[in-house]
Amino acid sequence: MKVLIVYAHPEPKSLNGALRDVAVQELEAQGHEVRVSDLYAMNWRSEVSRSDFPTLDQDSRLRVANASTQGFNANALTEDVQAEQEKLLWADTLILQFPLWWFTMPAILKGWVDRVYACGFAYGTGEHSDKRWGDRYGEGKLEGKRAMLIVTAGGWEEHYSARGINGPIDDLLFPINHGILFYPGYTVLPPFVAYRVDRLDDAGFLAVSSRLRERMRTIATTAPIPYRRQNFGDYVIPTMQLRPELEAPGATGFSIHQGEAA
Amino acid sequence: MKVLIVYAHPEPKSLNGALRDVAVQELEAQGHEVRVSDLYAMNWRSEVSRSDFPTLDQDSRLRVANASTQGFNANALTEDVQAEQEKLLWADTLILQFPLWWFTMPAILKGWVDRVYACGFAYGTGEHSDKRWGDRYGEGKLEGKRAMLIVTAGGWEEHYSARGINGPIDDLLFPINHGILFYPGYTVLPPFVAYRVDRLDDAGFLAVSSRLRERMRTIATTAPIPYRRQNFGDYVIPTMQLRPELEAPGATGFSIHQGEAA
Repeated sequence: MKVLIVYAHPEPKSLNGALRDVAVQELEAQGHEVRVSDLYAMNWRSEVSRSDFPTLDQDSRLRVANASTQGFNANALTEDVQAEQEKLLWADTLILQFPLWWFTMPAILKGWVDRVYACGFAYGTGEHSDKRWGDRYGEGKLEGKRAMLIVTAGGWEEHYSARGINGPIDDLLFPINHGILFYPGYTVLPPFVAYRVDRLDDAGFLAVSSRLRERMRTIATTAPIPYRRQNFGDYVIPTMQLRPELEAPGATGFSIHQGEAA
Repeated sequence: MKVLIVYAHPEPKSLNGALRDVAVQELEAQGHEVRVSDLYAMNWRSEVSRSDFPTLDQDSRLRVANASTQGFNANALTEDVQAEQEKLLWADTLILQFPLWWFTMPAILKGWVDRVYACGFAYGTGEHSDKRWGDRYGEGKLEGKRAMLIVTAGGWEEHYSARGINGPIDDLLFPINHGILFYPGYTVLPPFVAYRVDRLDDAGFLAVSSRLRERMRTIATTAPIPYRRQNFGDYVIPTMQLRPELEAPGATGFSIHQGEAA
């Protein structure tokens, strides 16, 4: 397999840096080809701005989705963005690796998503009709590829449990797993999460890295999160609400967007 | 009152720009003092990096929370970060205004949070004991101040409803409302959200701006989201799980972290 790791930590000598090396080593030991986008090392620019759209008339109002569509269709997006899009098309499997900062990804990785996920590439694709609401949520240009998160958190696992004060980790990561990975078509694997990482001793690091190695060894076979696909009958079009006969009538929240495991 | 609006959109002539002007005008008409941090206009840097900690030894490993604590305590954080912290202390009320990009805030605003929310300022404060788990979730340096979000979304309101495919808007915004605003002590008001904004005509803009004016007129009196405070008996310390006698035994998800409205 071809694996792309998009990695977002400012310190190479960090736990995240060490875990990235563990992941790369184990994947390569399994015969996979690995590329890494090290966003800090690349001096990745995080802000969507006019400079993303070099062909945009300097006097015209910037409408992000429009400018993005035009830039993507004309092959006129900036080189850094095009290079990342090519890597996404090259890879069978995408890993986003980051420390959980304020319950989501660091700004630099969000900026990678905001800029690389162009209109026509990751959204705004496919037919809109009474049968389909575009190619998204299980369909799209990245369909058939796998994706997963590698996340480190300073807090305790209990704090992120079903009734923990931070909210359940699966709910905190839903906007990423469902909204960023499943959206353009990825098959999403359960995330790898390491907790209480701030004072990890040698035994602790060994335990975490051993758990990560196992996930890397099974990356091609791990059962995905069974998110419901959009255009296959579970949702009413165009309101995109889950059909009343699916899940209990009062059921709400992110979890109703998972169906039966295959 | 003193109101700080942290505003994150790259185009001044956008709907977001127009809504910001509406908010400022209405707040000033009510006699409030308003300041705006226009992140794009300020060329805000989004990435937490070594350059945030000028006194950090260049050869030492960057441990973000440690470096942040030391920088904050020594008054040695960068000028841009210190200026924002001063504005937060100045304001009685904080508004974060942004377009919903990939189901959360744009990178530039996440970078404002990542950098301005220093350790010792927005987290890592207060006593840790068997009675208290630091000053957070309802306590902290920003306690007693109000905060709210102004958000625009391209999708339909139904897509963000209880059973909509994107997930309920209140759940999508929970990591911000609870994890970023309530965490350092803000009293959090329900968000203002405008949907289907991509092709808003004049009548649509009038309706949205009239709704926003009303929220700005009532900003001092609107009832907040009744999030449960951490250190007042609802959570078991140190696992920080909601006590079993609160909410139904099987209840989970973000909504259990709200108690009764006052």
